[in-house]
Amino acid sequence: MKTTTVWKSGQAFDTFQGNAKLEVDAKAGFGPKAMLLSGLAACSGIDVVEVLEKMRVLFADLEIEVEADQTDEHPKVFKDIHINYKIKTSEENKQKVQKAIDLSLGKYCGVAAMLKKNSNIYYTISLSPESI
Amino acid sequence: MKTTTVWKSGQAFDTFQGNAKLEVDAKAGFGPKAMLLSGLAACSGIDVVEVLEKMRVLFADLEIEVEADQTDEHPKVFKDIHINYKIKTSEENKQKVQKAIDLSLGKYCGVAAMLKKNSNIYYTISLSPESI
Repeated sequence: MKTTTVWKSGQAFDTFQGNAKLEVDAKAGFGPKAMLLSGLAACSGIDVVEVLEKMRVLFADLEIEVEADQTDEHPKVFKDIHINYKIKTSEENKQKVQKAIDLSLGKYCGVAAMLKKNSNIYYTISLSPESI
Repeated sequence: MKTTTVWKSGQAFDTFQGNAKLEVDAKAGFGPKAMLLSGLAACSGIDVVEVLEKMRVLFADLEIEVEADQTDEHPKVFKDIHINYKIKTSEENKQKVQKAIDLSLGKYCGVAAMLKKNSNIYYTISLSPESI
């Protein structure tokens, strides 16, 4: 796996994986360190979607909030990481959602496995039991 | 620090830090795990630019390639991480560039500090001594 990151000016960069491009800007845009939180969210989100689909669970509107405080001293690293999985599905599916998340954070998601070497990762589920 | 990541379909997500948005797609775009490599590049790039500017070193065209192999078993994590800092500056500034990178990877860059808990991080410098 490889990325190429090109400095533009100030704290702004274009970063590429193959032809795909993201714009990073620590001052006025998406910061480099926040990419770790989003990488964690998307990595785990992929697992959760895949596992729920395998379980034939009906769901919609998956949204993943990830939040972390940082240490005060340089290098500033994340303390605990808190993930909130917001998902629309029937109340009866809550155990299956929890199972999917546990499989992701405990077994499948490489980003979680790496970040856990530095931080504890906690999660909550906000289940919205509207009809889908 | 907080990000919100919204599932679109398949392995595609929009992720937000405040108003800034990045598009992630593990199948056909920028993958979640690659965000860690780019986060490392931009985090360290910011330090290198800042330190070189403080040292009054003239430079241009900073480009940072980051590459990592992954383990075969789930959860797939990075093995060694290799960074190549490509920079245009006079040959006589090489020691200063090296000093700036060492300060970043050893002291300032929080992303490096976190990823080092899982992987060794190595770097090379490709100095292009054209006039700037």
